[in-house]
Amino acid sequence: MQIGIVGLGRMGGNIGRRLMRGGHSCVVYDHNPDATQALAAEGATGAGDLGDLVGKLAVPRVIWLMLPAGKITEDTLNDLHNLLGADDVVIDGGNSFYKDDIRRAAQFRELGVHYVDVGTSGGVWGLERGYCMMIGGEEEAVRRIDPILSVLAPHRGDIPLTPGREGRDPRVEQGYMHTGPVGSGHFVKMVHNGIEYGLMQAYAEGFHILKHKASPDLPPEQRYDIDLADVAEVWRRGSVVSSWLLDLTAGALAQDGSLDHFSTEVADSGEGRWTIEAAIEEAVPAQVLSAALYTRFKSRDAEAFPERLLSAMRFGFGGHKEFPVK
Amino acid sequence: MQIGIVGLGRMGGNIGRRLMRGGHSCVVYDHNPDATQALAAEGATGAGDLGDLVGKLAVPRVIWLMLPAGKITEDTLNDLHNLLGADDVVIDGGNSFYKDDIRRAAQFRELGVHYVDVGTSGGVWGLERGYCMMIGGEEEAVRRIDPILSVLAPHRGDIPLTPGREGRDPRVEQGYMHTGPVGSGHFVKMVHNGIEYGLMQAYAEGFHILKHKASPDLPPEQRYDIDLADVAEVWRRGSVVSSWLLDLTAGALAQDGSLDHFSTEVADSGEGRWTIEAAIEEAVPAQVLSAALYTRFKSRDAEAFPERLLSAMRFGFGGHKEFPVK
Amino acid sequence: MQIGIVGLGRMGGNIGRRLMRGGHSCVVYDHNPDATQALAAEGATGAGDLGDLVGKLAVPRVIWLMLPAGKITEDTLNDLHNLLGADDVVIDGGNSFYKDDIRRAAQFRELGVHYVDVGTSGGVWGLERGYCMMIGGEEEAVRRIDPILSVLAPHRGDIPLTPGREGRDPRVEQGYMHTGPVGSGHFVKMVHNGIEYGLMQAYAEGFHILKHKASPDLPPEQRYDIDLADVAEVWRRGSVVSSWLLDLTAGALAQDGSLDHFSTEVADSGEGRWTIEAAIEEAVPAQVLSAALYTRFKSRDAEAFPERLLSAMRFGFGGHKEFPVK
Amino acid sequence: MQIGIVGLGRMGGNIGRRLMRGGHSCVVYDHNPDATQALAAEGATGAGDLGDLVGKLAVPRVIWLMLPAGKITEDTLNDLHNLLGADDVVIDGGNSFYKDDIRRAAQFRELGVHYVDVGTSGGVWGLERGYCMMIGGEEEAVRRIDPILSVLAPHRGDIPLTPGREGRDPRVEQGYMHTGPVGSGHFVKMVHNGIEYGLMQAYAEGFHILKHKASPDLPPEQRYDIDLADVAEVWRRGSVVSSWLLDLTAGALAQDGSLDHFSTEVADSGEGRWTIEAAIEEAVPAQVLSAALYTRFKSRDAEAFPERLLSAMRFGFGGHKEFPVK
Repeated sequence: MQIGIVGLGRMGGNIGRRLMRGGHSCVVYDHNPDATQALAAEGATGAGDLGDLVGKLAVPRVIWLMLPAGKITEDTLNDLHNLLGADDVVIDGGNSFYKDDIRRAAQFRELGVHYVDVGTSGGVWGLERGYCMMIGGEEEAVRRIDPILSVLAPHRGDIPLTPGREGRDPRVEQGYMHTGPVGSGHFVKMVHNGIEYGLMQAYAEGFHILKHKASPDLPPEQRYDIDLADVAEVWRRGSVVSSWLLDLTAGALAQDGSLDHFSTEVADSGEGRWTIEAAIEEAVPAQVLSAALYTRFKSRDAEAFPERLLSAMRFGFGGHKEFPVK
Repeated sequence: MQIGIVGLGRMGGNIGRRLMRGGHSCVVYDHNPDATQALAAEGATGAGDLGDLVGKLAVPRVIWLMLPAGKITEDTLNDLHNLLGADDVVIDGGNSFYKDDIRRAAQFRELGVHYVDVGTSGGVWGLERGYCMMIGGEEEAVRRIDPILSVLAPHRGDIPLTPGREGRDPRVEQGYMHTGPVGSGHFVKMVHNGIEYGLMQAYAEGFHILKHKASPDLPPEQRYDIDLADVAEVWRRGSVVSSWLLDLTAGALAQDGSLDHFSTEVADSGEGRWTIEAAIEEAVPAQVLSAALYTRFKSRDAEAFPERLLSAMRFGFGGHKEFPVK
Repeated sequence: MQIGIVGLGRMGGNIGRRLMRGGHSCVVYDHNPDATQALAAEGATGAGDLGDLVGKLAVPRVIWLMLPAGKITEDTLNDLHNLLGADDVVIDGGNSFYKDDIRRAAQFRELGVHYVDVGTSGGVWGLERGYCMMIGGEEEAVRRIDPILSVLAPHRGDIPLTPGREGRDPRVEQGYMHTGPVGSGHFVKMVHNGIEYGLMQAYAEGFHILKHKASPDLPPEQRYDIDLADVAEVWRRGSVVSSWLLDLTAGALAQDGSLDHFSTEVADSGEGRWTIEAAIEEAVPAQVLSAALYTRFKSRDAEAFPERLLSAMRFGFGGHKEFPVK
Repeated sequence: MQIGIVGLGRMGGNIGRRLMRGGHSCVVYDHNPDATQALAAEGATGAGDLGDLVGKLAVPRVIWLMLPAGKITEDTLNDLHNLLGADDVVIDGGNSFYKDDIRRAAQFRELGVHYVDVGTSGGVWGLERGYCMMIGGEEEAVRRIDPILSVLAPHRGDIPLTPGREGRDPRVEQGYMHTGPVGSGHFVKMVHNGIEYGLMQAYAEGFHILKHKASPDLPPEQRYDIDLADVAEVWRRGSVVSSWLLDLTAGALAQDGSLDHFSTEVADSGEGRWTIEAAIEEAVPAQVLSAALYTRFKSRDAEAFPERLLSAMRFGFGGHKEFPVK
């Protein structure tokens, strides 16, 4: 089927490629003409602006947005609100906040436009591995775009079936799921990323403990100089902690066990934060997910005011020599 | 080759089976004669006691202990100390504390006995999937038992090779690793379990947030009734959080999404605790791994004294009606 | 001066009493006529409804709201919006969210009404000890109500002056502070409560460790049966952890060291949650404040779904006997 | 009475001074002769070495050690073991690990020497405010040194009595407590310090949230520029979070709100770590106390390996530009 794609970055471009490989026809637009041109060279129909893209799509249209969450997505949806009409489907495949989906869907519903939110996992590997998708929206709209979803999805692959799933929605085993009403796709994807932070931090702490076991601060008889790349590799087979994140860890450590050329400042995105806010709204304890988020905040806090305050208190009660520091 | 196995529980029995399938010859002993008998019926040579087992092994002997960490392992090693001689190899494949390994190895070294510690992951799945093993000990002893290790290991399977590993120890890609001197095998396995706690808790918190999104405590327009079994399943393919623990989660939820028949009290073993102690000895922050351990402690704390103290303080300053409770 | 007070609960009633003791004249209203009547019997002028209260105040009026945050406060402010006029001052002394203050102040500003937000700490002790107040609003309005604030405040008392405060705002040493523009009073009070949660949890954990040192689960030689009431008391003098919360703890434990009659379920209010949300908005790590909040969430989670999920995973990989539970 | 004091640093010297002010006679020794000389100039009897000190004390002797925990304390106690005899009392007033107390007391008991452990809080303020003391040891020995303890203690002061303490040990209200058998004094002091870490971190996080509310990263309408020194001061009177640590915070901030001259690296002592180890031994959750300890570890971790690992994983799955860093 025909689909419009807006936003041709790392994710959007590859989504277009995977759809074209699957036999779909793509009309594409990026605010950077080079990106549009690149995909056009691979078989897509390039569009010069949003209006051009909308005009080149047969009605009822299907448009997939793959843009950074926030202002760009908001502006683009506002523009589309003026361009689309009854029975069109607009899909936000980015990382939008689910409460924004609910608001936006209501606005589009007034025009008869169907709004679908798709949480899309897979990163730069999606072109090859496929995209794990969590989809919120009306049943009818989700069914209509199934030809697209089924191509983008990872499919069963060599991952064994889970016993007890007989009679359950077979799409799920292909790697895509209709999670519920509008917003629920991004909500599930948000929690997915929250979990991701927790998993990553668990590995990071564990490898830190392994690495520091060689520290000269320890008594000599308690030191081990453990090859972290080998540890990551050995855990990939038969261990309880095997995972895709561990595969990536093994790859990074095999290149350079010091990781010296990687940043000590770790970014976080809206989804990690919103997960904690959702936990708080629900009164659900999220000790691990929060701790993981906070270590990222801390990694970027060069000022270290709270630590200075601790030093000030220590100086206050104990005369500890935290003061003065030159 | 010939090997003695002491301890034929869930793990030890299957280790024997996997070794026999691999062509090795096993002399086995369990304090429960039925367990010994069962393995003997499958081809092993049964022994009536430790001395019998030692006597039935050709020198130099190789003996694998697969016993609960603590007193039973300690007592058995003490008994073996009186039975073994120069060039014998004794392997502790259980979950012993690595500092105990160091102490025990020194005692055996005086006899010329080689002590090897093997951290063994794989649980009830090991017979089929193989055992991921982390091995501490002298190079020579570890080489000598390689025929055993290579059979027990999971092997490469269909898990893709990690780029950049050219020229590295090929045993690691088979799922077993010589981690360093005595104790290091159990140390690495200990951290493995610490990470395991963190990973598990990350999933648990994330699924809790998903589940509670259906809570009647939330405003109706903010509720989603999300199928958790399907979420676990969909994340298995193409998502960043895919892992073996997620596979198990998907399996459990597919059987019964309520999980009502599982215990609300979660056990912890020595390894999770020792991991935190190691972190503290190394001055390494372990926010996530500790938080994961503490939720298990909390799950078994029916008395709830700290919560009562919070209520008492709240009553003290605010007259909050925490008092009295009938 | 004359002041109107709306809301005569634990806090509002005592605020009226303290103001009257300080020579001010109060017009009071509560939706419960008995509460209005009670304060009228102590010298206040009772009002039958909001309109009556407004009518009984000389212009320009000063009205203090002491109502539960949320709907009641919102509704009352909406009603007052129709009743007040230029130069009136409306004070929200409750625990409102500071972003609501900003919104409400803008609405009142259109009428020429000054909106002041006061974060009020002191609980049931305020009548006697005075109220620590954090005040947001325009300089002029805050100055105008200074006669009220200076009476409500705790005053210097026997708390020693802080060296280095020469030349600083003397109101602060009386226990009230103009924190900045509208909303800032409630913002500072919000963080105050966030800190309060952290402090309380620190004590709760420490006393738990002391108490459990008598546990029969420990080896006999490692047990101490420590008198917690005495510990709390001894720390009140000369120790680094002395505080008012410790005073309250000492009082509660002196009554009954078991605390058996206090609730195991600990409530939390908006302010603890908003503090974490503010931390997340600011990308400030809040490990301790979050952990404190989550233990309260956990105290009320009877369902224990995450723990069941951990048990399910443990059963999945290890055959641990978490299953089935009768 | 007469007492020997070994170790005349910040704590030991002032303990001697406070005892002499209280009418006691001190024989003092420090490995630094200047320190010995200084106290001798104030009325103490100086000793040239441990043997000299022991010789100058009338039997049965009382000796107070105020030395850094660890090797110095251990060595000095070993030396004293050769010098003391039946009915002497040796007091470890430092911050020793309570399990060391238990071991050492048994060794001294063989000589008929009584070993008393005193956890001493008060820091550089103790000379003036007195020392809050937690005392472990046999009833008889603790009674014998009561004249010393009662002078060192802070006494009641102007801190109000706690209702409900009628009939309880009056020493406690003077600021010293016989906590139980040997080791219990240091155990209670250890937990005291664990709590102290938690309290300090709660304040540090709260003030960080207040400070960062002025950050240019926030939308302009959500910024407040709050005077932190004033906030600390205002909370000292009538608020729920008033404490001695807050007093110290107010003092530090009044000097210089930026705290720029204080260290960003925060030390930790054995007691904070042992508290967590005790919690783990007891299976008591210590979320807040651990988190507080870890922020100190983190403050000194310049290598930031775990953060690099997170960046490496992010690069691995998302192509995030964490790589390369120059």
